[in-house]
Amino acid sequence: MTACTIDFEPVGRRGKCQRNESLLACARRLGVGISSICGGKGTCHACKVQVLSGTVSKPTSSELEAFTSQELKGGWRLACQTYPTSDCKLTVPPESMTTAQRTQVEGLEITVQLEPPVKAYRLQLAAPSLSAPHADADRLLEALNQQHQLHCGKVDIDTMRTLLPKLRSWNWECQAIVRNDEVIALVPWSNRQLGLAIDLGTTKIAGYLVDLSDGRTLAAKGRMNPQISYGEDIISRINGVIKSPDEGVRLRKLVAEALNQLSVELCTEANANAEEIVEAVVVGNTAMHHLFLGLPVRQLALPPFVPAVSRALDIKAHDLGLHIAPGAYVHLLPNIAGFVGADHVAMLLATEVWQAEGPVLALDIGTNTEVSLASNGRISTVSCASGPAFEGGHIKDGMRAATGAIERLRIADDSIQYQTIDQAPPIGICGSGILDALSQLYLAGIIDEGGRIMDNHPRVRTYKGQREFVLVSKKERDGHPAISITQQDIRELQLAKAAIRTGIQVLLETKGCAEEEIKQVIIAGAFGSYIDIANAVTIGMLPLLPLSCFQQVGNAAGMGAKLALISLSKRAEAQAIASRVKYIELASAPNFEQTFIQASYLGQYRIIDGRREEID
Amino acid sequence: MTACTIDFEPVGRRGKCQRNESLLACARRLGVGISSICGGKGTCHACKVQVLSGTVSKPTSSELEAFTSQELKGGWRLACQTYPTSDCKLTVPPESMTTAQRTQVEGLEITVQLEPPVKAYRLQLAAPSLSAPHADADRLLEALNQQHQLHCGKVDIDTMRTLLPKLRSWNWECQAIVRNDEVIALVPWSNRQLGLAIDLGTTKIAGYLVDLSDGRTLAAKGRMNPQISYGEDIISRINGVIKSPDEGVRLRKLVAEALNQLSVELCTEANANAEEIVEAVVVGNTAMHHLFLGLPVRQLALPPFVPAVSRALDIKAHDLGLHIAPGAYVHLLPNIAGFVGADHVAMLLATEVWQAEGPVLALDIGTNTEVSLASNGRISTVSCASGPAFEGGHIKDGMRAATGAIERLRIADDSIQYQTIDQAPPIGICGSGILDALSQLYLAGIIDEGGRIMDNHPRVRTYKGQREFVLVSKKERDGHPAISITQQDIRELQLAKAAIRTGIQVLLETKGCAEEEIKQVIIAGAFGSYIDIANAVTIGMLPLLPLSCFQQVGNAAGMGAKLALISLSKRAEAQAIASRVKYIELASAPNFEQTFIQASYLGQYRIIDGRREEID
Repeated sequence: MTACTIDFEPVGRRGKCQRNESLLACARRLGVGISSICGGKGTCHACKVQVLSGTVSKPTSSELEAFTSQELKGGWRLACQTYPTSDCKLTVPPESMTTAQRTQVEGLEITVQLEPPVKAYRLQLAAPSLSAPHADADRLLEALNQQHQLHCGKVDIDTMRTLLPKLRSWNWECQAIVRNDEVIALVPWSNRQLGLAIDLGTTKIAGYLVDLSDGRTLAAKGRMNPQISYGEDIISRINGVIKSPDEGVRLRKLVAEALNQLSVELCTEANANAEEIVEAVVVGNTAMHHLFLGLPVRQLALPPFVPAVSRALDIKAHDLGLHIAPGAYVHLLPNIAGFVGADHVAMLLATEVWQAEGPVLALDIGTNTEVSLASNGRISTVSCASGPAFEGGHIKDGMRAATGAIERLRIADDSIQYQTIDQAPPIGICGSGILDALSQLYLAGIIDEGGRIMDNHPRVRTYKGQREFVLVSKKERDGHPAISITQQDIRELQLAKAAIRTGIQVLLETKGCAEEEIKQVIIAGAFGSYIDIANAVTIGMLPLLPLSCFQQVGNAAGMGAKLALISLSKRAEAQAIASRVKYIELASAPNFEQTFIQASYLGQYRIIDGRREEID
Repeated sequence: MTACTIDFEPVGRRGKCQRNESLLACARRLGVGISSICGGKGTCHACKVQVLSGTVSKPTSSELEAFTSQELKGGWRLACQTYPTSDCKLTVPPESMTTAQRTQVEGLEITVQLEPPVKAYRLQLAAPSLSAPHADADRLLEALNQQHQLHCGKVDIDTMRTLLPKLRSWNWECQAIVRNDEVIALVPWSNRQLGLAIDLGTTKIAGYLVDLSDGRTLAAKGRMNPQISYGEDIISRINGVIKSPDEGVRLRKLVAEALNQLSVELCTEANANAEEIVEAVVVGNTAMHHLFLGLPVRQLALPPFVPAVSRALDIKAHDLGLHIAPGAYVHLLPNIAGFVGADHVAMLLATEVWQAEGPVLALDIGTNTEVSLASNGRISTVSCASGPAFEGGHIKDGMRAATGAIERLRIADDSIQYQTIDQAPPIGICGSGILDALSQLYLAGIIDEGGRIMDNHPRVRTYKGQREFVLVSKKERDGHPAISITQQDIRELQLAKAAIRTGIQVLLETKGCAEEEIKQVIIAGAFGSYIDIANAVTIGMLPLLPLSCFQQVGNAAGMGAKLALISLSKRAEAQAIASRVKYIELASAPNFEQTFIQASYLGQYRIIDGRREEID
């Protein structure tokens, strides 16, 4: 009886499970915090998980009680009652987790003139009578005209469906919420108007609830993108959709559900109701944008990587499955290209780099990394396939930034000093920790500039045929398997960092700009916010510039979405940015291959015309 | 063991069923043509019916095979396998009927300048390349601009979802279907553009498939409104919705399904595909309009009878559950008042009475009858609750215009000459036959001007405590129960005809117009097309004018819908008509009650100031 490999998503933790070990016991052993109140007796139903692939034991009577047959068919199980019979992939939903995953919601706060796309108008209507039996909707539009000199021609159909009881129960006093020439909602006199800004990332979703009357952020929250369980990176999700059109429907539904849950959570925090949200802005990379809208994604993965649509869109929220005010619209900022999406436009909008004079580099580091070089109002952009390594993917003990992840690390002689998220016992290593490890191993001479692990340190060992560096030993983990960085892990990291550096170099060369001319490097995104810049420069991921040139701006895409939510001018600016950007296809750049090879080396250097030059 | 009363809808036939008689056997005995191929063995599944209320025998094994558990739950049964255990109401769907019901689709044909709201533009796009990887939707809009100088800003989201495979499989050649500034569909170069015009009546639905390139009607078809099973008249449907909001959802779904089936049938006849339909126009009375759109109807039944909306609307077909081109719109002509809807506007549009000089009366006779008086461009309109008697409702042997209905009738001494629909043996009497009977009985002196049945004719008898006139005796029907007109039936008919005549009189008095000044009387609607005008004048339903003044125009509402489908000017004209109409609330008119009492008398007379004056 061999052990099975269990993959816990979206936390991204993987490990062996004996066939007589329940999924709950396995999760606990691996440090994945699944809730359980009854102590595994199957009575509290707190440890619900969804089996996405692989086979498990038959449902117990507790499970038959906990789930409908539809849910059981969909793979829902109680982790404490279920034993694997093959390798499995599971989703642990947020409500079954003991701790939340860390997501990035903070970022620059920019003050901007309020100019919201929806406005509220107070109205006092005359009640109808036998001598004036005009229709409700006509009465409303006439009042807007007479009382506010507003020529509206339309009332949203969902809003029209509720006019009757609303007008009568509010004694003919109301606020009409108007967008362009359409009444999109009807609310009582006392109501606020709220907006929702969403940064829809491949891995994480950040949401902001904004008061449209003053631009204040009332609540900010992050959560994992539930699509992760169906593919860590965007390419595997696109491939899933190509194989089966149902997958596209499923992915779309998952995101809509996540956004609905997120908006309920945000509203709960702000003591509001999701129906008070009368406008939303969503930004994401082009693939996430397309998956959310139900647009085809096949062509995004094939040359010439053509989006279905680039220009900004306004779509009724209910057409996208969002449960906010029924007549509300979702505004989607424009995309730039197949691999440079509205999230990058939002980042450029928030950081205002497009207005910068001197050459400014702006990076949004993630599974896919977009890099822009702005100079005198001209912007060039590349997209680098940096892969999931910095999100903990494809790394033996890698995991996402959750409780127990090593996020900081220093090598001091034989001992390792590290810091974990929530000061919990270590269970894996997340992006910033991985970057630290690479830098520290290089500085300590344990790996050479080619990335090879030397046999010169007591923590280096050969395990299962591969050389690796032990970060936390089995002994230090009280008998749990050691946490280590393998030779294979280092190769993955080299590819990731080479991709980013190559993007920077191609941009500089195309624009005829030397590295040392760069005035500022703006680093956005969750991973970019937590990394140690000095270590990133040490390994050559970022060019050697004074540390004062670097600015970590947090979730700038989310900030850009917020700006577009409250300002029509900012929406126009976003469209101007998208039209202005020159997209450069990395693979077709001259010197691309040589540059990539040179950029995979560790250390501080310059790359000029595909050659690597040591810095004195 | 008492017999149960079975109500077969939408044919409107009611009769007794013994408990050992199957629903199929009962239907056959009553003359309701339910299909059966296997001879009642339960194997052909042709006799599907839906039990709406009442209880029946348990499903047999044949039925468990024929239906899903969901369908059985919804009341679906095989008529040959099912025995009633209480009074029941059934729907016999069109596909289970041996003969179609007669509906009116013909009407005036008016030539009008083509000016359709959607236009097709042929495009030849450049295929994308690595050096020009613009998005599909952006590429399309740019081509419209460059090749046709058209500034479109939007692509319908559903259309956007299919751009990718369409453009590529058509080798970048397409027709863009444009409505205002939106691309609503993409079709191959060879495609036609079709439009759908619908007259959505309380009882019947008429549909027309029109070629938008030349205005030709490619197919015309009618079918029953399936909502009939949930209430014969509009008030009972409104009451159903007030009692249970689910009922509104059900009624809305029923209409959408009927329209979808109708458009499939129309397309089959024209060798077209429902997706080729790129625009639809729907007209109906205000309640049908509201039920179709899912608008609240409660206030339509209560003073001051306020519609939710009156102005013309454009709504995405998919938001109304219609399966035509996914981006297509449905245009709804404006309503006038709670009981004067877009169908009346369409009728006024098609008959052009609003442009008439001399006083013209225009009537649309139905369960609710609208009457307009047009004079020098001014139009006044009333609405009369004429009730379902002329549709065969509330009449002992009444039925709708279907096979076996007596539609023409003459009394010659002791014998009755009659004509049935499809020359089938008589099973009941429909509207035009009922009107004939009333007139003939009056002329023969068998009923007096007050409507009382005299005891002066061999066919007059007292049956079950009520005096009645036997049209077809038990003997003449080979032992089936006699078909007769009862005293109660005559009272119902007097109320119906009084309502219509009162409407006419109130209009004339309000406008200070004498009966004899009327230049023309236009009679629209299915019932109005089949009636014998002379008989209608004889009983005093219509005023005494030369027969040459009367014009029966068939389904003018449907014709108006067709005009609005192919001409934007006609849509503007419809809005102008709706704004111009002065709606008069009948019940608040002076002399209303006296006029109504006088109008219930049979015979030819004038009514002046609520007094009845015999004509010399």
